[in-house]
Amino acid sequence: MTRGRPRDATVADRVVAVAGALLREGGYAGFTVDEVASRAGVAKTTLYRRWPTRDHLVAAAVATMLAETPLRDTGDARADLVRATLDIAAGLRAQTRALIAELVAYGARHDDLGSFLRELWTQRRQAASELIERGTARGQLRSGTDPAMLIDALVGPLYYRVLVTGDPITDDYVRAMADAALSGVAGQAEVPE
Amino acid sequence: MTRGRPRDATVADRVVAVAGALLREGGYAGFTVDEVASRAGVAKTTLYRRWPTRDHLVAAAVATMLAETPLRDTGDARADLVRATLDIAAGLRAQTRALIAELVAYGARHDDLGSFLRELWTQRRQAASELIERGTARGQLRSGTDPAMLIDALVGPLYYRVLVTGDPITDDYVRAMADAALSGVAGQAEVPE
Repeated sequence: MTRGRPRDATVADRVVAVAGALLREGGYAGFTVDEVASRAGVAKTTLYRRWPTRDHLVAAAVATMLAETPLRDTGDARADLVRATLDIAAGLRAQTRALIAELVAYGARHDDLGSFLRELWTQRRQAASELIERGTARGQLRSGTDPAMLIDALVGPLYYRVLVTGDPITDDYVRAMADAALSGVAGQAEVPE
Repeated sequence: MTRGRPRDATVADRVVAVAGALLREGGYAGFTVDEVASRAGVAKTTLYRRWPTRDHLVAAAVATMLAETPLRDTGDARADLVRATLDIAAGLRAQTRALIAELVAYGARHDDLGSFLRELWTQRRQAASELIERGTARGQLRSGTDPAMLIDALVGPLYYRVLVTGDPITDDYVRAMADAALSGVAGQAEVPE
């Protein structure tokens, strides 16, 4: 009943927050429903009623992590894309490399968790594509800008650094790469007549 | 003695080729020294003498896969970088997504195989950086081009597509992204005076 929210929503929020914290600490391998139940102070049977498998709980935790940084459309497509890319970088910095790598490895397999993660990522890219199309329509991005290519140019280098090279993804790096991507893929904005 | 090569080198080549094929088929999880020994027709003890653990054999197979596409310096830095990026894309296409994801996951961990894989990738990036620096010195890339950023812009989107989005990395896609990266990060070449 706290703050007008139904009691079970509060419990669910706490469980998902605990699950997220446990994932960050121990990665996928160290993630158990027992530990989540124990830390959240909730019976295991209650957990299994809502999240039938361990993977459902992992998926809920990852979805919550992503939802913490919604995509905004302020009317300035370039600024919004740079902001969104900085948010993704901050999200990646907040996780351990090993966890991101494990989630990506699971996502690349064709199991339930993988399908769920790919679906989450697809929704995010779809929202970004629409933002790019609106920016193109407003003349803020070069006409003919390919949304998928621009997203790949903005986000690809971040995942590459985190997963492969291990190089840091500082805000300065993100801004420099975003500038390069926006110049290269999006070109100079045409001044509307 | 075939083609003047010592006999043990021939056996080693065969074992590593078999190991690579097995990795491609079944990924890291399905990789066993027993199966490699059996398919290569070599005693397990012989294998263990040269590759003390399963991971040593995996590492040798991956190193061989990478060595199949050496970086060339023909004197035209832009063409060489596009060629190298096409080679990487072809290499990624030749593997299953699950295997690449597993190897990346290992690379992100601080175990022996992970360290070895990171070292391999670091050597490749170092060679590419030197190629970019020579291209910059020849005036083929804008002076002040940051090699690490250019490599990230060229290669990052490929890994992002393979590991995260699952979108195809066709040669047309690679060429378009490389053009964008070379324009954005490297700029137009200054005409030497």
